[in-house]
Amino acid sequence: MKRVHVALVGYGNIGTGFCANLHENHDLIVERTGIDIRLKYVCDIDFERERWFKVPPSKCVRDYKVVEDDPEVDIVVELVGGTTVAKRIILRAFEKGKHVVTANKALLATHGREIFQSAREHKKLIRFEASVGGGIPNIKALMEGLASNYIESIAGIVNGTTNYILTRMTLDGMSFDDALHIAKEKGFAEPNPKFDVEGIDPSHKITILSSLASGKMVNLEDVYVEGIGGIEHVDIEIATMLEAVIKPLVVFRNSNEGVDARVHPMIVPKTHKLAFVNENYNIIYIKGNFVGVTGFYGLGAGSVPTSSAVVGDTIDIAKALDSNAEIRQYGIPDLNSTAKVIPIERTANSYCVRLKTKDIESVRVEFESHKIEIEKQMEVEGYKIFVTGTTVEHKFKRLLDKLSSHHAISSKPSYLRFFNLEL
Amino acid sequence: MKRVHVALVGYGNIGTGFCANLHENHDLIVERTGIDIRLKYVCDIDFERERWFKVPPSKCVRDYKVVEDDPEVDIVVELVGGTTVAKRIILRAFEKGKHVVTANKALLATHGREIFQSAREHKKLIRFEASVGGGIPNIKALMEGLASNYIESIAGIVNGTTNYILTRMTLDGMSFDDALHIAKEKGFAEPNPKFDVEGIDPSHKITILSSLASGKMVNLEDVYVEGIGGIEHVDIEIATMLEAVIKPLVVFRNSNEGVDARVHPMIVPKTHKLAFVNENYNIIYIKGNFVGVTGFYGLGAGSVPTSSAVVGDTIDIAKALDSNAEIRQYGIPDLNSTAKVIPIERTANSYCVRLKTKDIESVRVEFESHKIEIEKQMEVEGYKIFVTGTTVEHKFKRLLDKLSSHHAISSKPSYLRFFNLEL
Repeated sequence: MKRVHVALVGYGNIGTGFCANLHENHDLIVERTGIDIRLKYVCDIDFERERWFKVPPSKCVRDYKVVEDDPEVDIVVELVGGTTVAKRIILRAFEKGKHVVTANKALLATHGREIFQSAREHKKLIRFEASVGGGIPNIKALMEGLASNYIESIAGIVNGTTNYILTRMTLDGMSFDDALHIAKEKGFAEPNPKFDVEGIDPSHKITILSSLASGKMVNLEDVYVEGIGGIEHVDIEIATMLEAVIKPLVVFRNSNEGVDARVHPMIVPKTHKLAFVNENYNIIYIKGNFVGVTGFYGLGAGSVPTSSAVVGDTIDIAKALDSNAEIRQYGIPDLNSTAKVIPIERTANSYCVRLKTKDIESVRVEFESHKIEIEKQMEVEGYKIFVTGTTVEHKFKRLLDKLSSHHAISSKPSYLRFFNLEL
Repeated sequence: MKRVHVALVGYGNIGTGFCANLHENHDLIVERTGIDIRLKYVCDIDFERERWFKVPPSKCVRDYKVVEDDPEVDIVVELVGGTTVAKRIILRAFEKGKHVVTANKALLATHGREIFQSAREHKKLIRFEASVGGGIPNIKALMEGLASNYIESIAGIVNGTTNYILTRMTLDGMSFDDALHIAKEKGFAEPNPKFDVEGIDPSHKITILSSLASGKMVNLEDVYVEGIGGIEHVDIEIATMLEAVIKPLVVFRNSNEGVDARVHPMIVPKTHKLAFVNENYNIIYIKGNFVGVTGFYGLGAGSVPTSSAVVGDTIDIAKALDSNAEIRQYGIPDLNSTAKVIPIERTANSYCVRLKTKDIESVRVEFESHKIEIEKQMEVEGYKIFVTGTTVEHKFKRLLDKLSSHHAISSKPSYLRFFNLEL
């Protein structure tokens, strides 16, 4: 039986799940593949911490040099996180002739080109299913199952923390702060939730998805990002009155003018297939020119679900080794081209504006003079609500600037965009 | 650039989509894989019929012998359907050293063992993504992405025709016959809809999924099958009163006692993630011991969506050829073992019983004497409705027999099961 040796680097949360999965399902994996995948090393700087699954001390090493210098190690599983040490580890692994599995979205979104380039030069595989959507095999779907499709658009909920917070606000009428507090208690939010709440985590994920979908490298800095921190309880109520919910979305749209890739909360009709995805669940809808709309649902975080993707990637590489395949990395974007990302100012959206005024007529005049149609007008908790027709963002922003300094308006106007992908 | 030659056998509905996809996205596939996949032959007995995508006459052959005798043909794409000619074509392809892509669920569900065995003996690949869920890459997910999971259960809507009919009955208040009529008009139902309405098509699909998920061959005859033909408009109303919908489901459950694999309509709570899947869409939820619940959504039929899976499979085989991989078929069930399927009589369910009586007390006495709890009782359109607690099917069937011949009951009692998987 073929034996494949794996070294885990980063014995943290997901790393522990990885070890547990590989151990518990070892025989099942042998049955399915005929390959004996063995964990040879677990590399970390801290072995004192309590873990819910313990590997034998004989496998534990503190020095990565032991891993990289051992020619028997076929696959390095990088679960260190971050973009400095992790990057060195991966690049060294390729140099030393090892394949790589990683869950590191931040690294791929910021240094993807360098990582992919190095893999190619050294004829090594890199797999990264767990970088988007945790355990959901969505990257495999995009790169393999849907490989015969031009990808028209993607819309997803890829951050469980913010979906959980908005779910609590929507279903239980909680305030943002209370919902965040509970998310922390349940372990769905980090002690410092900035990465999730401000949209940084999903921006890494949509950068990866957009690059794969468009076939061109998308620069992280070109992706428009807005967090959910500004959403108040009244916004949830407004959405409810519009028979809608607010969801923390990532979207991608491919067109002749370029790529539209962004992260921001959106108002989604209650009956839309994005709306039923609650709690800490993720969904990724992908629209292809032949397949139409497909969707991929599941838990996007957590050590146990995510381990499924990491072990799955490990199995895929093990199969390539078992079958003595010449190493080719299919489906990686063209590293010599950078996607032209359409700036948010040039995208067309419809908006839900909320403000306080005693002179609604002069507000309506502003909309009119900016040639922005008011499709609906409501009043919720003392706020005046205006739903606009579709308009280009820069035009809307000019109106917003005007309203912000308008004498008749007593609260800074706030707004949310409506979801408008045909998907 | 690597060239891979493909022969299509069966220039029907899906075959036409396959040709169109391969043609339209040819350059995209080259960009992604570096492989030039060429359609060398289209084999059919009828080239007179109108098709929405035409292949050049030079590729068209009527005799399969031309295909099988051409050593340049790497992959045979079998889209003939049925279990006789298709089987011969596939077995001959293996013998002649060709790999196979098929969408043929009936063939795999009835002769899977022989087909897989032949592929193995001849060291050839067979891929069959399109056999379940049309274009949705759910088989790839089950066999590859989720390969590190013991599969606990599956629940799915894998027949678009019956989902469409029940959707029309639910959302538009249509009768079964009217809904079926519209389904035929829209091309969602065959002129003879028996295969779908009686649950035969989904029984093929759950047989395939159950075999892959359990790792043992499931016999089609062991799968319990019930169609949707008995569902009347009053049943939809009853479901609505229970804040539920009726869905045409397939389920699989793995346990120490054996495999529970069946096809029948079930009552699903409105808020359940199966309930939002309407029209002709499909969903396959798969629960693994590490990943938890994952879901795969999309169009399960139609030539254009389904072509995505067929071309995707073709690309997968082309990659194996391009990388000179030794041929191994991973993830195929153990062909020497047959799954023990738990008979429906031994499964536990709760039921919604509908009957007409003027003597409700004597009906209640029957439930009591059979030790079947009544959890809820209602009246809808002159019918008395009883919702039972969970009970073993054979106990329930004894009660039903008794009620069927009961002097106080003026209509044959009918029933539906409630969905009860933790998923």
